Amino acid sequence: MRRLIAFALLSMPALVQAAEGMWTFDRLPIEQMQARYGFSPDHAWAEHVMRGSVRLAGGCSGSFASPDGLVLTNAHCVLACVSQLASGHEDLVAAGFVARDRSQERRCPDVELDRLEQISDVSERVQDATKGHSGRSYIQRRNAITAAIASECGDDERTRCDVVELYDGGLYHLYRYHRFHDVRLVFSPEYAIGFFGGDPDNFNFPRYTFDVGILRAYEDDRPAKIVDYFPLSTRGVKPGDLTLVTGSPGATDRQLTVAQLERLRDYDLLDELLVMAERRGLLYRFSQESAERARVAQRDLTVLENRYKVFGGRLRALIEPALLAQKRRDEEALMAVASPEQRQAWADIAQAGQRWRAIRQPYAYIERQRAFWSRYYGFARTLVRAAEERAKPSAERLPEFQDAALPRVQQTLLAAQPLDGDLEAAKLSWSLTKLREVFGPDDEFVKLVLGRQSPEALAGDMVRGTTLGEVAARRALWDGGAKAIAESTDPFIQLARATDGPARAIRAQYESEVEAVEDKALASIAALRFAHNGTRSYPDATFTLRLSYGEVRGWVENGREVEPFTVLGGLFARATGYEPFRLPQRWLDHQAALDPQTPFNFVTTNDIVGGNSGSPVLNRDAEIVGLAFDGNSHSLGGAYGFDERLNRSIAVDSRGIRAALRNVYQASNLVQELKLQ
Amino acid sequence: MRRLIAFALLSMPALVQAAEGMWTFDRLPIEQMQARYGFSPDHAWAEHVMRGSVRLAGGCSGSFASPDGLVLTNAHCVLACVSQLASGHEDLVAAGFVARDRSQERRCPDVELDRLEQISDVSERVQDATKGHSGRSYIQRRNAITAAIASECGDDERTRCDVVELYDGGLYHLYRYHRFHDVRLVFSPEYAIGFFGGDPDNFNFPRYTFDVGILRAYEDDRPAKIVDYFPLSTRGVKPGDLTLVTGSPGATDRQLTVAQLERLRDYDLLDELLVMAERRGLLYRFSQESAERARVAQRDLTVLENRYKVFGGRLRALIEPALLAQKRRDEEALMAVASPEQRQAWADIAQAGQRWRAIRQPYAYIERQRAFWSRYYGFARTLVRAAEERAKPSAERLPEFQDAALPRVQQTLLAAQPLDGDLEAAKLSWSLTKLREVFGPDDEFVKLVLGRQSPEALAGDMVRGTTLGEVAARRALWDGGAKAIAESTDPFIQLARATDGPARAIRAQYESEVEAVEDKALASIAALRFAHNGTRSYPDATFTLRLSYGEVRGWVENGREVEPFTVLGGLFARATGYEPFRLPQRWLDHQAALDPQTPFNFVTTNDIVGGNSGSPVLNRDAEIVGLAFDGNSHSLGGAYGFDERLNRSIAVDSRGIRAALRNVYQASNLVQELKLQ
Repeated sequence: MRRLIAFALLSMPALVQAAEGMWTFDRLPIEQMQARYGFSPDHAWAEHVMRGSVRLAGGCSGSFASPDGLVLTNAHCVLACVSQLASGHEDLVAAGFVARDRSQERRCPDVELDRLEQISDVSERVQDATKGHSGRSYIQRRNAITAAIASECGDDERTRCDVVELYDGGLYHLYRYHRFHDVRLVFSPEYAIGFFGGDPDNFNFPRYTFDVGILRAYEDDRPAKIVDYFPLSTRGVKPGDLTLVTGSPGATDRQLTVAQLERLRDYDLLDELLVMAERRGLLYRFSQESAERARVAQRDLTVLENRYKVFGGRLRALIEPALLAQKRRDEEALMAVASPEQRQAWADIAQAGQRWRAIRQPYAYIERQRAFWSRYYGFARTLVRAAEERAKPSAERLPEFQDAALPRVQQTLLAAQPLDGDLEAAKLSWSLTKLREVFGPDDEFVKLVLGRQSPEALAGDMVRGTTLGEVAARRALWDGGAKAIAESTDPFIQLARATDGPARAIRAQYESEVEAVEDKALASIAALRFAHNGTRSYPDATFTLRLSYGEVRGWVENGREVEPFTVLGGLFARATGYEPFRLPQRWLDHQAALDPQTPFNFVTTNDIVGGNSGSPVLNRDAEIVGLAFDGNSHSLGGAYGFDERLNRSIAVDSRGIRAALRNVYQASNLVQELKLQ
Repeated sequence: MRRLIAFALLSMPALVQAAEGMWTFDRLPIEQMQARYGFSPDHAWAEHVMRGSVRLAGGCSGSFASPDGLVLTNAHCVLACVSQLASGHEDLVAAGFVARDRSQERRCPDVELDRLEQISDVSERVQDATKGHSGRSYIQRRNAITAAIASECGDDERTRCDVVELYDGGLYHLYRYHRFHDVRLVFSPEYAIGFFGGDPDNFNFPRYTFDVGILRAYEDDRPAKIVDYFPLSTRGVKPGDLTLVTGSPGATDRQLTVAQLERLRDYDLLDELLVMAERRGLLYRFSQESAERARVAQRDLTVLENRYKVFGGRLRALIEPALLAQKRRDEEALMAVASPEQRQAWADIAQAGQRWRAIRQPYAYIERQRAFWSRYYGFARTLVRAAEERAKPSAERLPEFQDAALPRVQQTLLAAQPLDGDLEAAKLSWSLTKLREVFGPDDEFVKLVLGRQSPEALAGDMVRGTTLGEVAARRALWDGGAKAIAESTDPFIQLARATDGPARAIRAQYESEVEAVEDKALASIAALRFAHNGTRSYPDATFTLRLSYGEVRGWVENGREVEPFTVLGGLFARATGYEPFRLPQRWLDHQAALDPQTPFNFVTTNDIVGGNSGSPVLNRDAEIVGLAFDGNSHSLGGAYGFDERLNRSIAVDSRGIRAALRNVYQASNLVQELKLQ
């Protein structure tokens, strides 16, 4: 829950003019939008935009684009589905996928769409239930009440209910969603164009990427009937135009104290980046070994390289002095108006930070599985824990195994996932060497895991011996519960059993000595901020629906103006024929049919972060003018703060989408349904 | 020259009691040693110890151990030689090497031993020649005068002369060495015992490693006749005994300003660690591909893992607040006694730091070759630059190509080095992707290097097309000079030619805007420190001969006492049969012949750093009681400061050396020559 915490800045007047903010739909910044852009959305507009937006439960955003349930999102948001659908020698990731009619649409094994239906305030119930509690009991009471509220709300196959903590517990809101389970793949571009420019261009601009994926929601085996959807604009936008982005930014940490930000800089981000860098080198080399290995490692590598840039950008933002200097000023101003009792919160956080430093490595390696870089171990951990947790009443379980969360856990666990034994063995053996490196060969946990084996021998044996790669085996262990787990001789189940005690112990220690202390202290600081700001500011991102307003605008980089648009002609100029600057044959074949002046990608000042991927960029008429898929490198510091001079979102232009679907993919069915003739 | 800078701490009284210090032989800390250990070495002792010590020009220390030129050093210091000597299917690295008589001793292609003969003061000449100069002209004048002095000193095949800058230019000393070129391998243990514990145990203790290598100096094809040598002690040492370490610590940065240390923390070390981590992941995976690939990558991986720990330890030392807080206090005290003019030095350093931040990436990637992780490119760079530089008078050349330095350049370039094409291609292609990642695909230098090729295709083509792997090809280009270089169609020569202009340009910028400014400012700060301390303190390490005094002592880690000795019995208990805890068969075969209570490794409080590897640990009678090969993890912060509570050196005990040579290797010739019966 550490991420579900609030934010409010003391220096509000300066901010009202900025495009900063990820606003909840029950409190849109009407006055600011009116003052700056002469736009005052009414209740009907807000309801319409809310219901036209969807969240991909796996971590993306999207929107309905037709009355028959077409959903526009990013290619990288449907990539997992595409690779799961590939069978035999079919390489859908490389080849792309275009359903020429509805019969060709293929169900994604692991995609859930959530459409927000209602927001209601449950703050009093949560605050009453936790009043007077602290430490682990505070967390347990909070988990119990939020589980109870979600359960009463009618959480089931069709409905999802989450209690969302906003403003550090200043507010608790119940979010009720309509859930779409039957989601089918309609369109995915070839990897080479969906990720054109690859890692070198990621978080950069100028950019030339067709990061567009199309899904369709089904209900009762028929396309879902959708009332609120957003038509694609064929007119597009121009510099200075108002842009509205709706979506579910994942997490921001804009309210953390200076001590917490320094801890992130000196420990969390640094530790994580160094581990990611090694993993990356390993996957790079693994990918070079053969075309097949490149294919099987592609997803891990893509995810990793993206996270690596994100974390690197965040670390850089905390190292450069400007951001922390501003945070220090804000914090001093806040402390100046705090009572001695309120100031205790900062001391508590500092003390929790000391505890964190002492336990951070066991927490990361044991509970957070850094020692076990292995999907098999991930399955095994879930199965072992679920068997134990499901035997308890929902409210007493670890939050991720409470009733409301179980469908998602089960879906992820039981989705077909082709795993490569060589890759899994390489990853696991490497991570076991890291475990030994960090804790030393004499450490008891290291001995428990390795015995007298080497990391390489152990990992090889385990990967050869496991059956967890098969869905049926996982299902049998899930259905068989505690007895099946206790009797299993699968090496990963055995390892997960043996390591679960130490993992739970370090988690309990973390929760009581660090998390609970920090949550409570931040709530107290938030209360102080609330006394000044109330809800005139926005809460930190919580992977729930938000609106950002901004405009189409470039920026100045090292004294040079970066123009806000790129055009299709630039794409062809940039293509070298080599990955990641290789164009798919289909694009080369149809180059002549494309107007090189067609806008392709553009940047806006909208304040978005990871989780917003696939968000529609709307004009004031709620038409889709673009599809957000990235930010520039400056946007990575957006985890902690927003700088309108530099932070930019990057989107695919609706005119580029139209040109590609018509002239490259010749997807007449989609062109017709999206009215792009 | 940035590393050749001085150190003196204001708070001398506190330090006199500590074992801290790397003392030059012309100014040994007699008073401190007398006060603490009742030991006052006389001039004869100092001369004897100086001449018994040798430096391995490649970056290690050692000592003469017999009148016939036997040299004791570390196994890891002779590893390069051992792998160069392997031919055909012979794997000397794994199997070890024991010359049973002198006829079996094999010449190392690339080892030079330097024995210090004389130190003389040339401060006035250098200071006169540079007076009134600044920026690039200051550096050029300094280079010119030091080259002239070295040349006059008689720098030739038998003699090496270096001008060493001490105390930031407070002193310039001329060091004259006797040079041994014909150095032969006598003994090297199996890799598995020479590096027992491998990376997991590196910089850790308790430790069980036989990091012992033995060479012999030859002159005129006969064993060199040595007057000053150190006998091995069969009595050994006990806790609390005085220990004296002589050797050539490579570099420390103990006098840097706070701004410079912060820059190291926030940029240099962080950038470098992240790059090393990726390289490490790549080499880890490459090594997993086959036993042969593990063999060819072993050296790169070992060097890298070692550096990775070193840099990680340094970064950690700068992140933890204690060290920088102490530096800040010292700096404030110094600034308090500075005139406004003197205080300008700190402002100049801050400004140079700003420039550094702007050019650090091109400097690292282009001039420092981070973009080209390739031995072939290294050869090509040397050849291309040497051809251009050797056409100039020595004093006008880049310092690394002046006459005094040329023999070493040539020796390194023309030594046989078996290179693996797959490994070279893997490394180069990866580093080219980093180049593109950091500068972006639109950068002019990236386009110059890659053209429209991919990193992988380019690296593969180049490695296939080059002949620089052959000594004869390198020799022809060296001998052929500028004309041969200009006409060469070797792809690495072509690349080095094309990139040399940009590389020299960024180097010139770095030297004038950063290095020269910082050198001058540090000299000014050093002058201020000199006014307080003179030479009562020691200069920063400069890879020249130093003496450290200390004692055998454990330390307290997380409240637990770490005992100072390990014994041979512990080695056998620790062995698992798997790398890096696998014992060679020979050790297993002879276990019964070894007394398990024999001391094997021990720790002392001596203040040493990288470059000291292979240093003898002497008792006051100048007998070898141990062989230094490592430090504990706390010693890594020793780059910036010394903490006697925690910093420890790690050595192989002379009694362990005796037991192994007698009972495991049954090297009766060595046992006899070293008088270890």
